[in-house]
Amino acid sequence: MTEYTRDDFERLIRDRSNWGRWGDDDEVGAINLITPEKRAAAARLVRSGRSVSLSMPFPTIPAPDNPRPAAHFMRINDRGSGAGAATDYYGVEYHGLICTHIDALSHTWDANGMWQGWKPEETITTNGARRGGIQNWRTGIVTRGVLLNVPASRGTAYVTADEPVHGEELRAIAKAQGVTPEPGDCLVVYSGRQHWNAENPPIGTRPVRPGLHASCLEYIRDIDCALIAWDMQDATPIVGGLPWSVHAAIHAFGVAIIDNCDLEDLAQACAVEGRHEFMLVVAPLIVNGGTGSPANPLAVF
Amino acid sequence: MTEYTRDDFERLIRDRSNWGRWGDDDEVGAINLITPEKRAAAARLVRSGRSVSLSMPFPTIPAPDNPRPAAHFMRINDRGSGAGAATDYYGVEYHGLICTHIDALSHTWDANGMWQGWKPEETITTNGARRGGIQNWRTGIVTRGVLLNVPASRGTAYVTADEPVHGEELRAIAKAQGVTPEPGDCLVVYSGRQHWNAENPPIGTRPVRPGLHASCLEYIRDIDCALIAWDMQDATPIVGGLPWSVHAAIHAFGVAIIDNCDLEDLAQACAVEGRHEFMLVVAPLIVNGGTGSPANPLAVF
Amino acid sequence: MTEYTRDDFERLIRDRSNWGRWGDDDEVGAINLITPEKRAAAARLVRSGRSVSLSMPFPTIPAPDNPRPAAHFMRINDRGSGAGAATDYYGVEYHGLICTHIDALSHTWDANGMWQGWKPEETITTNGARRGGIQNWRTGIVTRGVLLNVPASRGTAYVTADEPVHGEELRAIAKAQGVTPEPGDCLVVYSGRQHWNAENPPIGTRPVRPGLHASCLEYIRDIDCALIAWDMQDATPIVGGLPWSVHAAIHAFGVAIIDNCDLEDLAQACAVEGRHEFMLVVAPLIVNGGTGSPANPLAVF
Amino acid sequence: MTEYTRDDFERLIRDRSNWGRWGDDDEVGAINLITPEKRAAAARLVRSGRSVSLSMPFPTIPAPDNPRPAAHFMRINDRGSGAGAATDYYGVEYHGLICTHIDALSHTWDANGMWQGWKPEETITTNGARRGGIQNWRTGIVTRGVLLNVPASRGTAYVTADEPVHGEELRAIAKAQGVTPEPGDCLVVYSGRQHWNAENPPIGTRPVRPGLHASCLEYIRDIDCALIAWDMQDATPIVGGLPWSVHAAIHAFGVAIIDNCDLEDLAQACAVEGRHEFMLVVAPLIVNGGTGSPANPLAVF
Repeated sequence: MTEYTRDDFERLIRDRSNWGRWGDDDEVGAINLITPEKRAAAARLVRSGRSVSLSMPFPTIPAPDNPRPAAHFMRINDRGSGAGAATDYYGVEYHGLICTHIDALSHTWDANGMWQGWKPEETITTNGARRGGIQNWRTGIVTRGVLLNVPASRGTAYVTADEPVHGEELRAIAKAQGVTPEPGDCLVVYSGRQHWNAENPPIGTRPVRPGLHASCLEYIRDIDCALIAWDMQDATPIVGGLPWSVHAAIHAFGVAIIDNCDLEDLAQACAVEGRHEFMLVVAPLIVNGGTGSPANPLAVF
Repeated sequence: MTEYTRDDFERLIRDRSNWGRWGDDDEVGAINLITPEKRAAAARLVRSGRSVSLSMPFPTIPAPDNPRPAAHFMRINDRGSGAGAATDYYGVEYHGLICTHIDALSHTWDANGMWQGWKPEETITTNGARRGGIQNWRTGIVTRGVLLNVPASRGTAYVTADEPVHGEELRAIAKAQGVTPEPGDCLVVYSGRQHWNAENPPIGTRPVRPGLHASCLEYIRDIDCALIAWDMQDATPIVGGLPWSVHAAIHAFGVAIIDNCDLEDLAQACAVEGRHEFMLVVAPLIVNGGTGSPANPLAVF
Repeated sequence: MTEYTRDDFERLIRDRSNWGRWGDDDEVGAINLITPEKRAAAARLVRSGRSVSLSMPFPTIPAPDNPRPAAHFMRINDRGSGAGAATDYYGVEYHGLICTHIDALSHTWDANGMWQGWKPEETITTNGARRGGIQNWRTGIVTRGVLLNVPASRGTAYVTADEPVHGEELRAIAKAQGVTPEPGDCLVVYSGRQHWNAENPPIGTRPVRPGLHASCLEYIRDIDCALIAWDMQDATPIVGGLPWSVHAAIHAFGVAIIDNCDLEDLAQACAVEGRHEFMLVVAPLIVNGGTGSPANPLAVF
Repeated sequence: MTEYTRDDFERLIRDRSNWGRWGDDDEVGAINLITPEKRAAAARLVRSGRSVSLSMPFPTIPAPDNPRPAAHFMRINDRGSGAGAATDYYGVEYHGLICTHIDALSHTWDANGMWQGWKPEETITTNGARRGGIQNWRTGIVTRGVLLNVPASRGTAYVTADEPVHGEELRAIAKAQGVTPEPGDCLVVYSGRQHWNAENPPIGTRPVRPGLHASCLEYIRDIDCALIAWDMQDATPIVGGLPWSVHAAIHAFGVAIIDNCDLEDLAQACAVEGRHEFMLVVAPLIVNGGTGSPANPLAVF
């Protein structure tokens, strides 16, 4: 595996940026690759009708890897005559390492700016993002999903901190699995987070984290996917002290990211179904100016 | 149209209850009707790939019809070297009349109890519902959706308060539209809420509300749908002073309800596509013990 | 009454600013005037021991003048053997026009900056204020309070929108009441908000609001009070289109403001006790970087 | 030190209950002991004017002993012409072991009920407590505070888990300190929590906790105080497996409790001032039906 340096990273970001690719005013990014035809093709992948959730539970329980638990409060409303209703309040800072969520194009930036070069100081307000809000994906994401199973390829239970997943490894896994990622796909990378958590200090409790190496960014750009979904995130520390690693796909390529998936059921379903492609659906909440949304991504076979 | 009385309602609830239909321990209800085969058939409805959201925006803006606005707060995280991230907090009491959401089986009850006869005092705690929580639908809802367009049938812009939608009317509309609701479908009833709101005190600001008459409950049971989605809700006041009208479908039949949809785009899409059936997807957040979930339901043609 | 113009206002802000008065690094402002001696003198005002709250109830109820109600959720904790506890969650955006609260020095600014000339873009972060946070008043505010009763002086029930309270009027009222405000006092201005609300669209529902005229700022500076408390706030619209009127006391003079008091009980207590001075106590929550705090200010006679 | 058993505890609760002492409809409890005369006498204790906070900071920072951090969000409001305001949202589940707060009479119960024998199932709703809400103390608590310094008496830095503070020890400390608690006082018990936390797993992270023994309940009843304030709480596990230990003072005696104080400054102030009595002020937020309030209690010398 060739060394991947900070220079490689910065060259990639610069030379293969998607800024302007879908017009100068675009706020949709690589989700543009999901055309009606792409959606229809994704739906044609459904045969058995098996449906699988890629989501962890809404993180209401305090834990070392959940330092700011989501809020869940109940209210009981008496309607007389023995009738009633129970309602609840949900509150969550969903970004971070514990809540399954999708990142919008307003979520990240580096010194060169946000997606399309937007300046964060002009774009982000305390009332929400002026551009790239999650509402730009209001009609949802329905596309082909492709699972790459790293532990299965390695013959281990999970990715370890000292051996992050590299881009070339993903390329090789796809080939070995006999699946070809295509433009507009959702790349789903399974690294075995739940198995890691069972045997190690859970993801989110240590500064060193297993996950994907910055070199995956090039692979992501090569396959021209619209979004990625993963259980582990960018491995840390990041090569060359960069502020962002794979998450740079958001501001550089306009690619959406679904963080903190639980991919156990999906990996198993792929095994049972004997294929690694499926229809993937994400339906983010339409929060004007929101930088993402908690989500329950679905894979349907 | 025959008169529909409190007695008719109570007889229906009693004689055609679905309690026990899917086993005494069932917590899934009519969503059981959505088998893998049903999902696969729903996916086969996708042809053009047009995708439409059924959701109103997340209700963060105070308004007369939004007396408890959802919370949206932002946080900016500096990552050094000019890089950073924006994150946000979303908080919402989503039940009520302004937030698009799905009701779980733990949401409602009458004097006879909740779904399956569960007793609310044993089931509902301030830490969530012990049974019938939204997590029971964790793998999402992927089924056939059927839109019934009431205003188009009436030749008006919207349903009015003095002429609620009756069950027989829905039956007639389906026939006239040439669409046959089937078991496990999502029945989508368009009543023109957005047009009503443009010309009247908005839904949620007056005790008298336009919407569906209690007699629709019988139709819902007859067609054996798994869930319903609507823009207007139960018309109020309710016939015979009953505590619940169509919402009784939750505790009596185990039917899910998606409240407060915006169905303008869907009605238009049906007209353009020349059909009233489509694949409907709802992906509720997996909140253990939650009584529902905010949602962005999708229709794909 | 002489005309008070935008020029008068800007001259006052500029020429009589308190910036630097308590040192260049000061973050306490006019609360510095409340010395231990001042506190001891305030305590000596207590004779009958009558205690009065200046607070409205925590604003949990939706209403036209409460468009973003405070959150109040309950949790019941079973401890076994029939024992238990009830706990609750309180959440509030307390600034605005409905919650009784104190403003910290980090709350306001104009084109010249915040208190001491701090620049808002360097001072305010989404994680709190770097300077002038409410924690600077952690040991609480215990000082002499002086009530000026405007409606009693006018022979009316409340201040009206077309006749805001001017600085000269406050000076005359103090004299007529036989009370002399002194440095470090809390100036309490009663305008009859509750009576206004009973007969008019409540404060907070209309852009035109009764209250104090910008000329009061000069009076506030003349008497050198440490803080002010009031039921009505700055009258709007503000003279000369200024962004701030009396609230400029925060950034110009370092004066704290207690907004949205209910002064009915206090006005009555002053009448019964036959005096307009008392010990005033405010105990803000110690929120690091907070721009103020909800509060229940107390007057003790 | 005589053994203190479960029987002693239950006899005390039963035989020396304060139910009905201030009338059958009373919702104020032992705070009734703080008469106007008591307040006036408390104010007369103020001589130097030194003011001390008994509060820890509002617990916004995640930590092992803060598993559900308080929320603090900021909003920046542009007012044009370079002017603006910063506002914030505070949200907190204040009960527990990290937030300084006062417990109302609706907070606790045992098998015999709440204060006055109220039944929790009739009294506690998800919209608040029907009786004994914190609003009953709306005029605040102004009384004599008396600090008992346990570590100073023991010659240690803090109370340890294997040697909880007993009632007889408090009695002896008061005597040794030359201070006599009187009816209506606030008993302040300093146990050295901050020192404990510096050298041990912090309070709130282990089931075994240092603090006050159930026998203190008898002392509390003997001295007839109106409220207590402490840095450590009830020692756990509790004698005889009782659900409540010292916290039973709430439902048995109507005594208020201020939990999670930081008493370092107060202990030091007492040493400097050469006395252990002072004016204590608590100003709870007026939350209708609230089971308590976050607070910043003040001691003034």
